[in-house]
Amino acid sequence: MEKRLKIATIGGGSSYTPEIIEGFIKRAHELPIKEIALVDIEDGKEKLEIVGNLAKRMVAAAGLDWKITLTLDRREALKGANFVTTQLRVGLLDARIKDERIPLSLGMMGQETNGVGGMAKALRTIPVILDICKDIEELCPEAWLINFTNPSGMVTEAVLNNTKVKCIGLCNVPVGMIKAVEEVLGSDDFVFHAVGLNHYVWGKHIYFKGRDVVKDILPKLMSSEKFNPKNIDATPWIPEQIREIGMMPCPYHKYYYMRGDMLKKQLKDYEGNKTRAEFVKGVEDRLFELYKNESLKEKPKELENRGGAYYSEAACELISSIYNNKKSLMVVNVLNNGIIKTISDDSVIETTAYITSSGAIPLSSSQLPLSAQGEIALLKTFEKLVIDAAINCDYGKALQALTINPLVNSGTLAKQALDMVIEQNKKYLKGW
Amino acid sequence: MEKRLKIATIGGGSSYTPEIIEGFIKRAHELPIKEIALVDIEDGKEKLEIVGNLAKRMVAAAGLDWKITLTLDRREALKGANFVTTQLRVGLLDARIKDERIPLSLGMMGQETNGVGGMAKALRTIPVILDICKDIEELCPEAWLINFTNPSGMVTEAVLNNTKVKCIGLCNVPVGMIKAVEEVLGSDDFVFHAVGLNHYVWGKHIYFKGRDVVKDILPKLMSSEKFNPKNIDATPWIPEQIREIGMMPCPYHKYYYMRGDMLKKQLKDYEGNKTRAEFVKGVEDRLFELYKNESLKEKPKELENRGGAYYSEAACELISSIYNNKKSLMVVNVLNNGIIKTISDDSVIETTAYITSSGAIPLSSSQLPLSAQGEIALLKTFEKLVIDAAINCDYGKALQALTINPLVNSGTLAKQALDMVIEQNKKYLKGW
Amino acid sequence: MEKRLKIATIGGGSSYTPEIIEGFIKRAHELPIKEIALVDIEDGKEKLEIVGNLAKRMVAAAGLDWKITLTLDRREALKGANFVTTQLRVGLLDARIKDERIPLSLGMMGQETNGVGGMAKALRTIPVILDICKDIEELCPEAWLINFTNPSGMVTEAVLNNTKVKCIGLCNVPVGMIKAVEEVLGSDDFVFHAVGLNHYVWGKHIYFKGRDVVKDILPKLMSSEKFNPKNIDATPWIPEQIREIGMMPCPYHKYYYMRGDMLKKQLKDYEGNKTRAEFVKGVEDRLFELYKNESLKEKPKELENRGGAYYSEAACELISSIYNNKKSLMVVNVLNNGIIKTISDDSVIETTAYITSSGAIPLSSSQLPLSAQGEIALLKTFEKLVIDAAINCDYGKALQALTINPLVNSGTLAKQALDMVIEQNKKYLKGW
Amino acid sequence: MEKRLKIATIGGGSSYTPEIIEGFIKRAHELPIKEIALVDIEDGKEKLEIVGNLAKRMVAAAGLDWKITLTLDRREALKGANFVTTQLRVGLLDARIKDERIPLSLGMMGQETNGVGGMAKALRTIPVILDICKDIEELCPEAWLINFTNPSGMVTEAVLNNTKVKCIGLCNVPVGMIKAVEEVLGSDDFVFHAVGLNHYVWGKHIYFKGRDVVKDILPKLMSSEKFNPKNIDATPWIPEQIREIGMMPCPYHKYYYMRGDMLKKQLKDYEGNKTRAEFVKGVEDRLFELYKNESLKEKPKELENRGGAYYSEAACELISSIYNNKKSLMVVNVLNNGIIKTISDDSVIETTAYITSSGAIPLSSSQLPLSAQGEIALLKTFEKLVIDAAINCDYGKALQALTINPLVNSGTLAKQALDMVIEQNKKYLKGW
Repeated sequence: MEKRLKIATIGGGSSYTPEIIEGFIKRAHELPIKEIALVDIEDGKEKLEIVGNLAKRMVAAAGLDWKITLTLDRREALKGANFVTTQLRVGLLDARIKDERIPLSLGMMGQETNGVGGMAKALRTIPVILDICKDIEELCPEAWLINFTNPSGMVTEAVLNNTKVKCIGLCNVPVGMIKAVEEVLGSDDFVFHAVGLNHYVWGKHIYFKGRDVVKDILPKLMSSEKFNPKNIDATPWIPEQIREIGMMPCPYHKYYYMRGDMLKKQLKDYEGNKTRAEFVKGVEDRLFELYKNESLKEKPKELENRGGAYYSEAACELISSIYNNKKSLMVVNVLNNGIIKTISDDSVIETTAYITSSGAIPLSSSQLPLSAQGEIALLKTFEKLVIDAAINCDYGKALQALTINPLVNSGTLAKQALDMVIEQNKKYLKGW
Repeated sequence: MEKRLKIATIGGGSSYTPEIIEGFIKRAHELPIKEIALVDIEDGKEKLEIVGNLAKRMVAAAGLDWKITLTLDRREALKGANFVTTQLRVGLLDARIKDERIPLSLGMMGQETNGVGGMAKALRTIPVILDICKDIEELCPEAWLINFTNPSGMVTEAVLNNTKVKCIGLCNVPVGMIKAVEEVLGSDDFVFHAVGLNHYVWGKHIYFKGRDVVKDILPKLMSSEKFNPKNIDATPWIPEQIREIGMMPCPYHKYYYMRGDMLKKQLKDYEGNKTRAEFVKGVEDRLFELYKNESLKEKPKELENRGGAYYSEAACELISSIYNNKKSLMVVNVLNNGIIKTISDDSVIETTAYITSSGAIPLSSSQLPLSAQGEIALLKTFEKLVIDAAINCDYGKALQALTINPLVNSGTLAKQALDMVIEQNKKYLKGW
Repeated sequence: MEKRLKIATIGGGSSYTPEIIEGFIKRAHELPIKEIALVDIEDGKEKLEIVGNLAKRMVAAAGLDWKITLTLDRREALKGANFVTTQLRVGLLDARIKDERIPLSLGMMGQETNGVGGMAKALRTIPVILDICKDIEELCPEAWLINFTNPSGMVTEAVLNNTKVKCIGLCNVPVGMIKAVEEVLGSDDFVFHAVGLNHYVWGKHIYFKGRDVVKDILPKLMSSEKFNPKNIDATPWIPEQIREIGMMPCPYHKYYYMRGDMLKKQLKDYEGNKTRAEFVKGVEDRLFELYKNESLKEKPKELENRGGAYYSEAACELISSIYNNKKSLMVVNVLNNGIIKTISDDSVIETTAYITSSGAIPLSSSQLPLSAQGEIALLKTFEKLVIDAAINCDYGKALQALTINPLVNSGTLAKQALDMVIEQNKKYLKGW
Repeated sequence: MEKRLKIATIGGGSSYTPEIIEGFIKRAHELPIKEIALVDIEDGKEKLEIVGNLAKRMVAAAGLDWKITLTLDRREALKGANFVTTQLRVGLLDARIKDERIPLSLGMMGQETNGVGGMAKALRTIPVILDICKDIEELCPEAWLINFTNPSGMVTEAVLNNTKVKCIGLCNVPVGMIKAVEEVLGSDDFVFHAVGLNHYVWGKHIYFKGRDVVKDILPKLMSSEKFNPKNIDATPWIPEQIREIGMMPCPYHKYYYMRGDMLKKQLKDYEGNKTRAEFVKGVEDRLFELYKNESLKEKPKELENRGGAYYSEAACELISSIYNNKKSLMVVNVLNNGIIKTISDDSVIETTAYITSSGAIPLSSSQLPLSAQGEIALLKTFEKLVIDAAINCDYGKALQALTINPLVNSGTLAKQALDMVIEQNKKYLKGW
C-alpha cells in the first residue's frame, strides 16, 4: 500500500491558497494526499482562518478525505512533510507598496522583483527562508521545497548554496509563455527550451514538428495577448530588436528593454496612488471578502486578476511530476552547472528540466546570443551581491548591487534608495 | 497520409546488416519504411549481395513491402534519404588486424578504438566520412546521419565541426551498461545519466525510486556478467578504485585502468595470432557462409559472437525516437556545450540526451570527479589532435597525439608506431 | 651603425601634433629618428600645413636633423615606417558634436567614448582603421601600430582580431591615474597594476614599499585634483561605494556610477550649446590661430586645455620602451587571454604590461570583485556588438548594443538614437 | 638606518647549505643580513653541526659579521624571520632510495618528483610543511617562505591554498634552461617566458632582439649540453616532436616523452643498486667528509655533482629581488589565476613573474598548444589528488592519482605501489 503524502504550505494565509488547493484537487487521482498543513505567522492569523476554511470547503466539496490543518506552529506543519511549498510575503502587501514607491519617489522603476524593489524583497525574504530551511533540515530532510516566493531565482540560489534542502524554484511566467506558444502554434506538442534567469528568461528554442520554429513564430508571439500579462504594461515590443535576439523574450524583459516607456506609465500610477501593489491590495481585500462567504466552495474567478495565473499549474504539476516520476519537461530554477557559460556553476538559472522522482535534471544548451550573455552576467552579479548582502547584512554589497543594476545605474540614486529601504523596512531587517 | 521513409545504410555489405534489418522489422509498426538502400564499395560487392539477399528474405518473411536496394552507387542511395546509417570499415578487417598488431609488435596495447589502433582507424575513416557528408549536404540535407562507425566519438566530432550534416553518434557500449543495471536493479524504470567520451564513459547517476543509487549498486555491477562483454578481457576491477570514483565505469576503462594485466593477455594472443581482429575475421567468414544459405530468413544466433550486441537497439531505436518524437532518454554522442567543464564546447562527448523529432538535447551535469576530469581532458586532446591530423594529413599532430596517449606515453614508441601505421595503410592514407 | 627610425602619424593635422612632436624631442637622446611623416586627408590639408610647419619649427629649434614630411598620400607615409601612430578623427569635431548632442537630445548622457556617442564614433572609425591596417600589412608589416584613436579599446580589438598588424592601444587616462597616485604617495617608486577596459579601468593594486596600499590611499585619491580631469565633471565620489569596490576607479566610472548627476549637468550644457565638443572646438580654433604664428617654436601652453594631457607621455614613452627594450611597466590595451575571467580571451582589455622590444606582455591578475566582473562582462558585450556592427554594417547588432548599454538601457531610446546616428553620419557610414 | 635581515633555513643540515651560504655571501652588498638561522631535527643534528660550522667558516672568511645560528628549535629559528627557506627532506636519502626503488621493483619509472616516487615524497612532506606554516603564521607572519622543497609545485600549492603564508615556490630547472638559452644565443639579454608545471615546464617564448626566437633555436637547444643535466639520462629528443610542440621542453619532459628508453636505463641501474638516490647518497657521504675539514672555507667543487646546480641562483636571487624591489623577471611557482586556461585558478603553476618587494606578479600567457594543455590538465589532476590525499590521509584519492599518472597508468600497479609506499613509509605517514 502506498504511503500518503503530507504537504506543508508556508504562508498558507495567502490569497493564493485557493489556487493551489484547486491544483491539488484537479490532481487528486494522481496525488494520494493525506494532509495539507497551511501555516502562517501570528500577523496572518485572521487571513489564514478565512482562506483555510475556504480550502476545507473546497476539499469537502470535491469529496476528498484530505486533512486541512491550519496552524501558526511552523515546526508542527513541517514535521514529516513530503513537499513544502512557499507563498509567503514578509511584510505583506504594505511592504510591497514601499518596494514600489521608494524607487518611484526617486524617479526609478518600481517593481517587486527587480531593481530597488527586488532587492528590498530579497533582503527581507532570504533570512526568513533560510530559517525555514533549518527546520526542514531537522524535521523533514527528505522533503522537496518547491519555492514560489519571489524573487524566486535569488531565494532558490540562497537555499541551494547555503543549506542541504532539496529545493526547486518556480515561477508562473514560463507557464504563460508556453500558453502563448500553444495558442500561436495551435498545438501543445512542442518542446519549449527556456534559458535565462528568473524574470529574465528566454524561449531559446521551440521545437515543433522536427524543427526549431522560434524565429518563425516570433512576430505572431509579439502580438499575442497571452504574452502580455495583466500586471505588466502593454508597451509594444520593438520588432527589430526581437528579430535580432532571435529568441522569445519574457514579459519582464520590457522592464529592461523599454525602461523609458514603462517608467513614464509607472510614474503616473505612482502619483495617483495606483501602483501595482496598491491595485493588488485592493484586489486582495475584495478577495478575502469573497473568501469569507461560507457558501463559496471553489476558487473565485476574481483571483485571476491577482496576477498569479498558472501558479497551480506550476507548483502542483511539479509536485505530481516528482511524485509520479513523470519524466516530463518543466521550466524550473536550478543550479547552472555550465548551461549558461558566462556565469558561475553555482548560479541559479531558470531553464527547462527533465523531471523525475529524483528531482530536476536541466537540459544543456548552446551559448546564448552575445547580448543576452552580457545582460545575464550583469544581472546575476546583481543577484549574487544581493544574496550576500541579505545573508551578511552587508551595506557595501547592497550598494554595489544597486549601483550596477540596469534599472538604477547610478551610485547617488543607489545610496538614496538603499537608505530609504533600510529605514522603511527596519522591522524586517534585523542586524542592519 | 504520412510520407514513408527511405533509409540509406553505408557499408551495407557488413556482417552487421541482419542486426539492423531485424531492428527495423521489430519496429515496423512505428516506422513506415518505404526503402532501405544498402550501399557498399566495389571491394565489398560480393558481401553486399550475400547479406543484401538475406535482408530481402528477412523482410519478405516478415510480410513487409519494403524495398531493399543493393547498390554500389552511393549518391543514388543517399538521394532523398531520411536517415543515413554508417557501418563501414575502411580497409575491412585486414586493416583492423594491422591496427591491433602494430602496437602489439612494439609491446603496446592493440585495440581498434584507442591508442595506436584507434588513431589508425580514425586516420583512415574520417576523410571517407567527410566525403560522404558532402554528398549528404547535396542530396539529402535534411537527413539524420546516425553514425555507428568507430571511433564513433572522433568521427562524430569531425562531422559536427566540419560539415552541416545533422549527425548523432552512437555506440552499443552504453546499451550494455544499461542492461547490466537493469539486471542488478531487477527493473528498467531508472534514469541512466551517462557522462564521458565514447569508450570512456561513466554512468554518473542512476536514479531509481527517487534516489541516486549508483554508489550502492557498484559492487554488484562490478561482478555482473553483462558488464564484462566478450570482446574485452575479464580482468577484475579494483574495488577501492571504483568506490573512490563513485561512478559506473564502462568496460573500456579497463584498457586504461588495468593496462598491465590487459596487455599481458593481449601479447599472448598476439603471439598466437589470436588477436581480437583475427578472431572476428574467423567469425565473419563463418557468418557469410551462413548468410549464403537461401533458406535462412532471420538473423542467425552466431552474429552475437561478433561483438555488436545491441547495435540495432541503439541505431533503430534512435531512428524511431526521432521519427516518433518519443521524448525518451538515450545515450548518444553530441557536442559538449559546457556539460564537461574541462573540455571545449565543440568537443563531442557521450552522454544521456532527450530525443525529440528535432534531435538530441543532452542533459546537463554537475562536475565529474577530479580524476575523471583530468583523464577526459587528456583523451579529448588526443582525439582533437587525431581529427586534425586526419583532416590535414599532419604528421606532427599525429605524433603528439600518440605521444601523450595513455596507452603509448612515449615519443620513441609513438614515432615507431606512427611510421608503421602510415607505411601499412598507404592505400587508405592519401596525402600523407 | 644603428638604423634610424621612420614614424608615420595618421591624422597628422590634428591639434595634438605639437604634443607628440614635443614628446619625441624630449626623447631625442634615446630615439634615433630619421623621419616623421605627418599624413592627413584632403579635408585636413590646411590644418596639416599649419601644424606641420609648427612641427618643423619645433624640431629645428631643438637642433635636430629629423625630416618632417607633410603628405596626403597615406601609402607614401607608411612605406618603411617602424612605428605608426594614429590621432585621426573621422568627421572631425563636427561629428563629435553630433555624437554628444544626439543622445542629449533624447535625454541620455552624451559622451564621445561611451553610450550612443561612443558607438557612433566606433561605427565611423573602425572601417577606416581597418583600411589603414591593410596598407600597413602591405607596406610596413613589421611596424608597430600605436593606437590612440578613440574608442581605443574597441579600435584595438577590431585591429587585433581582424588583421595581422602588431597593434597596442593606448589612452592617457591611466597616465593621469598614475600621476594622482604619485602625488598622494609623494613617490614614483610604486607598481600600478591596472585591470579593466579602456575608460572603465581600475587601479587594482598599488604596490608600495612591499605592500598593496590601494585601499589605504583611496580616501586621499578620491579628493585628489589630478584625479578629476577637466573634461569630466567634478561630481564627488560616493565613499561607501569606493570603499566597497576596494580599487581605484578611473574618472570615466562616474559616467556609470553617477549617471543622474552627470546627466543633469550635461543637459544644462546641451541647452546652452556648451557641450564638451563645442567647447573643444573653440579651443581648437584658438590653437590653430596660435599655431599659425611663425615665431612659435614650441608646444603652446593652451594645448593643455584640449584634454589630451599625457598623450606624449603615453605614446612616445611606449615607442621608446619598445625600441629600447626598456622592460618597464605601462598600462596598455591588449588581448585579455584569461586575465579577466568573465570575458573571452580575444577581448581587448586595458591593463599593466611589461614592455619589451617584442611588444607588451600583460601581467596576470586574480579575479576582480564581483560587481566589476558583472559590469565588465556587460560593457565588453556592448563593445563586441558594436565592433561587429561596424565591420558588417549590422543594424540589429548596433540596436542590441545600445539597448543593453548602461547609459541607454531602453530599446525605444536605442532605436531612436541609432536612427539619428545613421542619418546624421550618412557621409561616413557607407553600406548602412 | 635600514633594518637588517633574519633568514631561517629549515633543513639547515642539508648538504646544500654551503650553496645557499655562498649565494648570500655573493649578494652581501645588496642584502643586509644580520642572522642566518640553520634549523634541523634531532636526527639531523650531527650533519647540522658539520655543515653549520662550514657555513660559519665561509661567512668569517668573507669578512662578514653575520650571525650563523645552529638550532634544533624551529620556533626559535622562525621568530622574527624575514625570509624562510626550506631544503628539508623528510626521511632523508633513505626515503628517496625507497621512492625510486618501489616503482622500479614493479617495472615503472622511479623518480623522486614524479610518478610513484613523487607521490610518496609529497605524502611525507606536505604535512610537515603545513606544520611549519602554522609556526610561520604565528611567529613571523610577514615573512616570505621561499620553498625549494620537492615536489615544489605540489608543496607550494598546499601552502597557498591551506595557509596564510606568503609563499613562492622555486626550482633550479628553469635556471638551467635559461643558462642553455644564454649559451645558444651568446647573450643574456632575452626574455624567457616559461609556462607549465614544476618539472613539466616549457620555454613558451624566448624574446630576443624584438622577436620570439624559440622555434628558431630549438634545434640547437636540443643538442646543448647545458640542457641535459647530469641527473637525467641523455636519451636524445625526437626532433619532429619538439618541432611540433614549438616550445622549449624541460629536461623532465623526457620522463614522459621517452618513457620506454628512460625506463630501460633505470631498470639497469636498479638491478645494480645504482639508482640516482643511491648515487647521490654516495656523493653526500663524501661531501660531509669534506665539510668536516676545518680548513675548508668555501663551497667545495664536488657539490656540483649533487644535482642542485643553480640552487643559490634561484633562492638567493629571489630573496634579493624581493628585498631590493628589483622588478626583474624570474621563473617561480605561483597561483595560476587563468594563465593556463585548462586548469583551475587555484592551481600552482611554474611561470615567469615580475618580482617586486610585494612579491611575484606572473605574466599572462596565450593558450598553450593543445597537447600541452591536455597533459597539464592530467598532471595537475594528479597533483591535486595527491595534495588532498596528503592532507586528509585519503587512500582512495592516492589510488586515483597513481592510476591516472602517465608513469603508472594501471590500477593494478597503482594499488601495489601505493601499498608498498604506505608500508615502507609508516614512520612518516601518520594517520594512514
